[in-house]
Amino acid sequence: MDEVPGSMGTSAGFALRLGQTIFSSASLIFMSFGVQFYSYTSFCFLVTIMGLVIPWSFTLALLDGYSVHVTCPIRQKGLMLIIVIGDWVLTILTLGAASSAASVVDILFTADGSVCPPKMCSRYLLSTIFAFLSWFLSMASSLFNLWVLPSL
Amino acid sequence: MDEVPGSMGTSAGFALRLGQTIFSSASLIFMSFGVQFYSYTSFCFLVTIMGLVIPWSFTLALLDGYSVHVTCPIRQKGLMLIIVIGDWVLTILTLGAASSAASVVDILFTADGSVCPPKMCSRYLLSTIFAFLSWFLSMASSLFNLWVLPSL
Repeated sequence: MDEVPGSMGTSAGFALRLGQTIFSSASLIFMSFGVQFYSYTSFCFLVTIMGLVIPWSFTLALLDGYSVHVTCPIRQKGLMLIIVIGDWVLTILTLGAASSAASVVDILFTADGSVCPPKMCSRYLLSTIFAFLSWFLSMASSLFNLWVLPSL
Repeated sequence: MDEVPGSMGTSAGFALRLGQTIFSSASLIFMSFGVQFYSYTSFCFLVTIMGLVIPWSFTLALLDGYSVHVTCPIRQKGLMLIIVIGDWVLTILTLGAASSAASVVDILFTADGSVCPPKMCSRYLLSTIFAFLSWFLSMASSLFNLWVLPSL
């Protein structure tokens, strides 16, 4: 079979995983700096999901890096199936968390200034943007891996 | 190739499309009954997306119904590619809209009663639930069609 760039065991796949780890960490850090996040369910949800995405992406980045280094692509159907299912579940959860956080940020911005100080609001906004970027890369990884799956 | 149940041109696919049309119409109707929805960006977004999903799913339901009736499955790669891309875009948008509406509903429910009367709030909640159901069926359609695509 042809090597699909971006799937597991390629250097593009490694770059995608690294990007996911960085963006989701950034999202978590920006959200956690302001300790008020637990007053909104959506922000708590975002923090939980980012806490799941970071170890998942980091582990797969390590696996990808190892696979690229020893030039031995991962081609076991069972392992790939687990990765694809995990990827899809996390992608869906990340999109849900990012969208719900975005709608809360929108409400906070349109409300009067008493609800959240401008500095806090822009932190929430940045966190949401990073969550969307992380989702975008997760989506790319999931699609490439799903594309590879039938040919294994 | 094997017929994948749930993909285009099967009776399961027709049922999925019909379900999407019904659920997204229900979501739109429950949201539009309360005319206050335009005061929240997320609700406007949900209404817009449901307005896109209804004609899309209805057209594909007709196409599926026709294809099942004349027992001539749709197997043109170009057409299937357009359907898969359209499906995925709408699935992602539906999930985003449903999640953001859900987070607004959550805020409205936790706020004091002055923000929205209980009757209105439960309408928003029902609309969001139907949007999630519509998303679930869209996701199933997209996955089945994507699975069929490489074998064409």
